[in-house]
Amino acid sequence: MTDGTIETSNLRVLGISGSMRSKSFNLGLLCAAKEIAPKGMTIDIFDIASIPLFDQDLEALGEPEPVAAFKGAICGSNALLIATPEYNYGMPGVLKNAIDWASRPPGKSALADVPVAIMGATPGTGGTARAQLQLRQTLAATRALVLVQQEIFVAGAMQKFDKEGRLVDEDTRKYIGKLLEALAGWTRRLSNGKS
Amino acid sequence: MTDGTIETSNLRVLGISGSMRSKSFNLGLLCAAKEIAPKGMTIDIFDIASIPLFDQDLEALGEPEPVAAFKGAICGSNALLIATPEYNYGMPGVLKNAIDWASRPPGKSALADVPVAIMGATPGTGGTARAQLQLRQTLAATRALVLVQQEIFVAGAMQKFDKEGRLVDEDTRKYIGKLLEALAGWTRRLSNGKS
Amino acid sequence: MTDGTIETSNLRVLGISGSMRSKSFNLGLLCAAKEIAPKGMTIDIFDIASIPLFDQDLEALGEPEPVAAFKGAICGSNALLIATPEYNYGMPGVLKNAIDWASRPPGKSALADVPVAIMGATPGTGGTARAQLQLRQTLAATRALVLVQQEIFVAGAMQKFDKEGRLVDEDTRKYIGKLLEALAGWTRRLSNGKS
Amino acid sequence: MTDGTIETSNLRVLGISGSMRSKSFNLGLLCAAKEIAPKGMTIDIFDIASIPLFDQDLEALGEPEPVAAFKGAICGSNALLIATPEYNYGMPGVLKNAIDWASRPPGKSALADVPVAIMGATPGTGGTARAQLQLRQTLAATRALVLVQQEIFVAGAMQKFDKEGRLVDEDTRKYIGKLLEALAGWTRRLSNGKS
Repeated sequence: MTDGTIETSNLRVLGISGSMRSKSFNLGLLCAAKEIAPKGMTIDIFDIASIPLFDQDLEALGEPEPVAAFKGAICGSNALLIATPEYNYGMPGVLKNAIDWASRPPGKSALADVPVAIMGATPGTGGTARAQLQLRQTLAATRALVLVQQEIFVAGAMQKFDKEGRLVDEDTRKYIGKLLEALAGWTRRLSNGKS
Repeated sequence: MTDGTIETSNLRVLGISGSMRSKSFNLGLLCAAKEIAPKGMTIDIFDIASIPLFDQDLEALGEPEPVAAFKGAICGSNALLIATPEYNYGMPGVLKNAIDWASRPPGKSALADVPVAIMGATPGTGGTARAQLQLRQTLAATRALVLVQQEIFVAGAMQKFDKEGRLVDEDTRKYIGKLLEALAGWTRRLSNGKS
Repeated sequence: MTDGTIETSNLRVLGISGSMRSKSFNLGLLCAAKEIAPKGMTIDIFDIASIPLFDQDLEALGEPEPVAAFKGAICGSNALLIATPEYNYGMPGVLKNAIDWASRPPGKSALADVPVAIMGATPGTGGTARAQLQLRQTLAATRALVLVQQEIFVAGAMQKFDKEGRLVDEDTRKYIGKLLEALAGWTRRLSNGKS
Repeated sequence: MTDGTIETSNLRVLGISGSMRSKSFNLGLLCAAKEIAPKGMTIDIFDIASIPLFDQDLEALGEPEPVAAFKGAICGSNALLIATPEYNYGMPGVLKNAIDWASRPPGKSALADVPVAIMGATPGTGGTARAQLQLRQTLAATRALVLVQQEIFVAGAMQKFDKEGRLVDEDTRKYIGKLLEALAGWTRRLSNGKS
């Protein structure tokens, strides 16, 4: 990688799941993405489970280690891939909490200028459309640059994952492939366009 | 209190702050509300700081004690009063996380049919308008019954609270009084209307 | 009807479709609702197509006739039933425009204190979940009292309506019946609870 | 201008006001932007007042002339600058309606890949924060590329505009200058980055 440009052969994507469940469908989406990733893209999954509840008093004592690790992982990546379930018409508080930390302190958002792609899976209908909407809203505030060309809404997840939580639905795997291609293109475009 | 009706002389309101900071402006709004509460209304503040990050695997092991305490406190109240800061154009992940727990399991939301009033304070402009919007959205999903007559958006909080975090702005105190009157009316109306 | 109370035998509901298309699925939902309405409930459909684009200069010249008719129809009803398609992750501008007029002038919203139920149909997936979310947000601003117990999201509308736009899906018809029962209960509860 | 790249000396921005009022604050913001525009940027204002209410039956008869003119103006521009008031916690129905037309037919959104900056003014508090949020949500659906670095929220507009509707507040004029610089940079970055 040379200054400011991203080689096709080296695109590091950080995957984040909004669900903590070990057999989470959304973790399953990320695992499928790892398998499907186009040549030159590597996807690492960061587990946000150890990030504490945000508390400004706690922050004042120094950045907690899991938060520093999260921000470091974001900074070491070229793009993010977030998979979110939908809880109460929105993203999980757990995911919002991790983003709240990453956006701190004011003016130093680790997410600023970071390309992001979004997907989501749910056992019910709707495919997490409302959660993804809220996630876009939140990410705009952090100054992240969210892909608008492609989105993935996986409804009826029970039928699309096997018992081990592996995504077996071929159509969804194909959509993820397209999403990753679009994320690669978006990341390169933003990088190449930098003056 | 007789079945299904609420006496004016006995209205228990549970206050919840979305900020964990000890000198939080939003906690300050709740403390002011306690002082201002109309005759017959008592306000208790529940601290959501000990509620863990939501994880369905954790839930499957049994409801964590702080969650049980939170749901118990909601059930023992006639109404909620939520004070929220605005983080990244939304409510804090910490607050959403507490609501996610309270809404579980599906079909057994502790917030269902609970009257709620909302307010918020921020050092900047806007008065947490976007966070309150998102909070309304989330609460609709939990089947809570959110007051629409009155809202309180406190901008420029630095000038309205003293160093100990006590609300000293007289106008804001007056607005809180009106909000509490409206919440009392809304709670009684919903209660009286039950068949 | 006696002062402030609504008899079961006389519940007037105003139906509003967010789509102007003559064979609109959402108009189809309202027509089905007319057929399904529980005993004592009558549903009239108001066509918002003739309401002009909102313009404060136009308003200053006097309320346009179609706006007066719309506000009159709202005032003459006990509750609203809104069926909305989803355009660009939100309700149609046409529907928002009608609500903007009805909410005017400030402090005199025709929608204030009006019980409202929401449903929506779309040929695609998601069932207008995002549009309904935005509609709730808008209606909260108008001080309408939106039902939270029941919602109807009709996806894959092509398979659920016949060529004339009549709703033929039995499950959806059943859900509409439940929504109307819930709206009747909500309307009576709010009415009975008035002091 | 050569293929795919935008010269600094030739950046055409289309300004759109969400308010139809002749002395609208938001039109005033756009007029100020015209005066403030950095060297090489020209801003033309398109009046959406003649765009009819969206109706798919009407669309089927052929694109109405004002819609064709609107889409033509968008296509002839390098970027958009939208100034929106806030009505009922959202953008005006009039603005949403214009965007609904511009996004049609499916797969042929005139707004796809178009850089957009957003601002808004209101006589009250909040500076149209909720309307801008909703506008971002809508624009994401159209595949427009909305600037996240800068936003302008003008509250207390009565004090910032003179009787003729001209923006006289120097701070706001300075912010608009920064927004336009950021929009120019964003537009160039997206253009240069195209492969």
